[in-house]
Amino acid sequence: MNTNKKLETLDEKLKEIANLGHASKLMSWDREVYMPESGSKHRAESISELSGLIHQKTLALDENNLLSDLNAARKDGGLSEDEAVIVRETWREYEREAKLSEEFVRNLSQLTSEAQDVWRKARANNDFLQFGPTLEEIVDMQRKKAEYLEFETTPYDPLLDGFEPGMSTEKTEKLFSDLRDFLVPLIDKVSDQSLDITHSITGKEIRKEDQKAFNKEILEKFGYDFQAGRLDASTHPFTLGSQDVRITTRYDKSDLLSSLSFTLHEMGHGLYEQGLPDKNYGTPLAREPSLGIHESQSRLWENHIGRSQPFTKWLTRQMQENLQSVSDELTTDNLYRELNTVEPSLIRTEADEVTYNLHIIIRFELEKALIEEGLAVENLPAAWNKKYEEYLGIEVPNNKQGVLQDIHWSQGSFGYFPTYTFGNLYAAKLDATIREEIDTVDEQLSNGTFDEILSWLQDNIHKEGMRYKTEDLIENVTGEPLKTDAFKQYIEDKYRGLYDI
Amino acid sequence: MNTNKKLETLDEKLKEIANLGHASKLMSWDREVYMPESGSKHRAESISELSGLIHQKTLALDENNLLSDLNAARKDGGLSEDEAVIVRETWREYEREAKLSEEFVRNLSQLTSEAQDVWRKARANNDFLQFGPTLEEIVDMQRKKAEYLEFETTPYDPLLDGFEPGMSTEKTEKLFSDLRDFLVPLIDKVSDQSLDITHSITGKEIRKEDQKAFNKEILEKFGYDFQAGRLDASTHPFTLGSQDVRITTRYDKSDLLSSLSFTLHEMGHGLYEQGLPDKNYGTPLAREPSLGIHESQSRLWENHIGRSQPFTKWLTRQMQENLQSVSDELTTDNLYRELNTVEPSLIRTEADEVTYNLHIIIRFELEKALIEEGLAVENLPAAWNKKYEEYLGIEVPNNKQGVLQDIHWSQGSFGYFPTYTFGNLYAAKLDATIREEIDTVDEQLSNGTFDEILSWLQDNIHKEGMRYKTEDLIENVTGEPLKTDAFKQYIEDKYRGLYDI
Repeated sequence: MNTNKKLETLDEKLKEIANLGHASKLMSWDREVYMPESGSKHRAESISELSGLIHQKTLALDENNLLSDLNAARKDGGLSEDEAVIVRETWREYEREAKLSEEFVRNLSQLTSEAQDVWRKARANNDFLQFGPTLEEIVDMQRKKAEYLEFETTPYDPLLDGFEPGMSTEKTEKLFSDLRDFLVPLIDKVSDQSLDITHSITGKEIRKEDQKAFNKEILEKFGYDFQAGRLDASTHPFTLGSQDVRITTRYDKSDLLSSLSFTLHEMGHGLYEQGLPDKNYGTPLAREPSLGIHESQSRLWENHIGRSQPFTKWLTRQMQENLQSVSDELTTDNLYRELNTVEPSLIRTEADEVTYNLHIIIRFELEKALIEEGLAVENLPAAWNKKYEEYLGIEVPNNKQGVLQDIHWSQGSFGYFPTYTFGNLYAAKLDATIREEIDTVDEQLSNGTFDEILSWLQDNIHKEGMRYKTEDLIENVTGEPLKTDAFKQYIEDKYRGLYDI
Repeated sequence: MNTNKKLETLDEKLKEIANLGHASKLMSWDREVYMPESGSKHRAESISELSGLIHQKTLALDENNLLSDLNAARKDGGLSEDEAVIVRETWREYEREAKLSEEFVRNLSQLTSEAQDVWRKARANNDFLQFGPTLEEIVDMQRKKAEYLEFETTPYDPLLDGFEPGMSTEKTEKLFSDLRDFLVPLIDKVSDQSLDITHSITGKEIRKEDQKAFNKEILEKFGYDFQAGRLDASTHPFTLGSQDVRITTRYDKSDLLSSLSFTLHEMGHGLYEQGLPDKNYGTPLAREPSLGIHESQSRLWENHIGRSQPFTKWLTRQMQENLQSVSDELTTDNLYRELNTVEPSLIRTEADEVTYNLHIIIRFELEKALIEEGLAVENLPAAWNKKYEEYLGIEVPNNKQGVLQDIHWSQGSFGYFPTYTFGNLYAAKLDATIREEIDTVDEQLSNGTFDEILSWLQDNIHKEGMRYKTEDLIENVTGEPLKTDAFKQYIEDKYRGLYDI
């Protein structure tokens, strides 16, 4: 087989894996959105079966040394740029996957599928003990996974690397402690102050159907294509990718702004998915280089655009025109303050953009404690509550609003939470760069014009897929490697106008 | 490996296949119910991938002679009754599948996935030529399939056997010509008469949301479990099985009765799925012996129960109590007549229970003409229209309401339509048997009591899965093999009270 034939074979094999991945992801989407309760057992088995097959097929990428040969050809400079990216990243993923046995992959998938149900019930009953034993099993398997994947410094490294390739625990610690030192005193100061909001939209009852219609209206104005996607509701909003890009949000009848934030956030993920080159479907050229990059897109639209003053001006008009229950007394000023109220709170997904990162830092520190320092799962709720007191100055009244609030640990996602903060940091730097390169951003936002910003993101980020490693992509586009500066600057500039800080 | 170990291995392998089947069926369900248009390309690839894998895994059932050995043990009487059923039917399915190459299976799946889109567009545009070339390809592949599967008399035999194992084309021809000779003159007589209906519910505008709520209400009264199922809408109502049993219906704002008929029909399928023994999930003991048997359950609830006088009495009350727009003037008599109006019409899925079978007989005859007599696809619309004129006395005004109305040929389902009429024939005989064994059926139906009838069906049909061949199951339960007598008797008895026949 010559190199071209080998590349074709690789491409076919990658498409097979992508096809199975699509089936698996759709089943997960359906589980969150439409599956009736009693379907969970067979669903877990079916998803686990596909995990096993995907693992098998990933390992089979090197059958007859197909992938090794192509990787050698890459190193010899015998591949085009695109081909080299595909082979480099496939090899990296293959090497990782090859360290795990199929049995381990299937068992972990089965355990975490079932664990999500256990967690759901435990959370509903506000009973950590119901979830504890399952979480213990998951933590044990994460430690085993880290051992299989091998590590030099800490078992947390290979877990983190699964979501944010190239990022180390040490580097994360530095970034996070820098951020913590900036945020804790700032929040402490802000906590005593309150914004003057006279016509609040939060608390106003708006029927879910009307909220849904408004969310769809806004999505359409952003150019979100409903021939190629959907908007549904789920407890934990998320996005399903590829050509059929589905986002979900969450409705609370007295909190329109919350559904809208979720929608803009997931729309950011959705626009990224739609911007990945479909001609490379199934290959690393049609995937994100890291979850942090994916998250940077959602946070950019949700926060840097969706909570900005000029956007708020446009949004105020949209609300007045499309929502009967919104009075003319709603002003941009009021809405802007409401969208940017800083207040330490219990629930991560509802946190404002300033306190949000402390929720992440807490999870990162607790994950490390569980994985590398041997914190016992039974002591996790106490450790959780202590950190919330320490960093956010708030008391956790129960586990439902505390350690049981997130689905992710039940999904076996350890090393995943930090990518939310990486996303915030990337987003701040991308926002600053966009504003340097496009000088009419504010004017565009206040007119509800989003296409130039979207094009910029498509050209600089979306269309590249995994062409560059995350750190190189960021440095290429913004001119410097990941730091906390841009985020801190953004927060200071913005909140100086709202609070006495 | 001893026999017990072999049986365990077989069970594991069957569960793997069932898990992949679940993924594939869910993707098909989603395609009909929620998938945005642009998802169809990747969806087709993904379903095709799974078809290929299911085929591979079915063939791998005989790895190391596993299945052959078990089948030999079965013939030697070395298996329990349940084990013998599992091995007998798995062997039958394996032998069939082994005659098809994986390439053929994948190509057919890919072609028919794409063909559904082509058909959808052609139907929307009322343009047969748009679908013709694709249908030609499908017919060619059906002929090839028949050749691979081998046959003695006609290529239609192995196609029919795929849906109704044990049934021959010859036997079908006899049953159908007997039925046609009964129906054509009867319908000819009825066509000139019209029922006196003073307070029609059809044509009354009822909002889709209200119709949906009413359909759900009725389903709950039947004991349909929404913790284990859903009710959605799709152009072609259908049922997704296993523990998570989802049914769909179709809403027309001026036709409540149509949505209700679809719901009762699919509920019949759903109750059957829920009655199959879940402990045998993945094995032939948890599957229907034939599609005709599955259809007998839907038709029994839709027609023999759902259009009976005593049920109509109960339904009238339900409508008056739950639907604001239904007046007190609605009488059982009126509703009964409306539910049982016989009128030759163009669309199969909307046909009454008398004319319905002629729609099927027409499709059966045309399929045979395409598959065994060489009818050219280009001449199919003319042949279709001629038969509608001849059997139903109606002119087909366009292909949308004619040859393009059904999705099934685009799905590659040749040999499938006859199972609808088998279902009607089985249902009539089962209904007669139930009435012999439970003497208070009418009283129960007029009170909205369905549990004794459901238990009877569960005990006699559902829980058996594929334990008996279809013909044996029918003979065991009803005392005689399949004939047209019970159906003809039912029609004569019922419609003598409505029409002068």
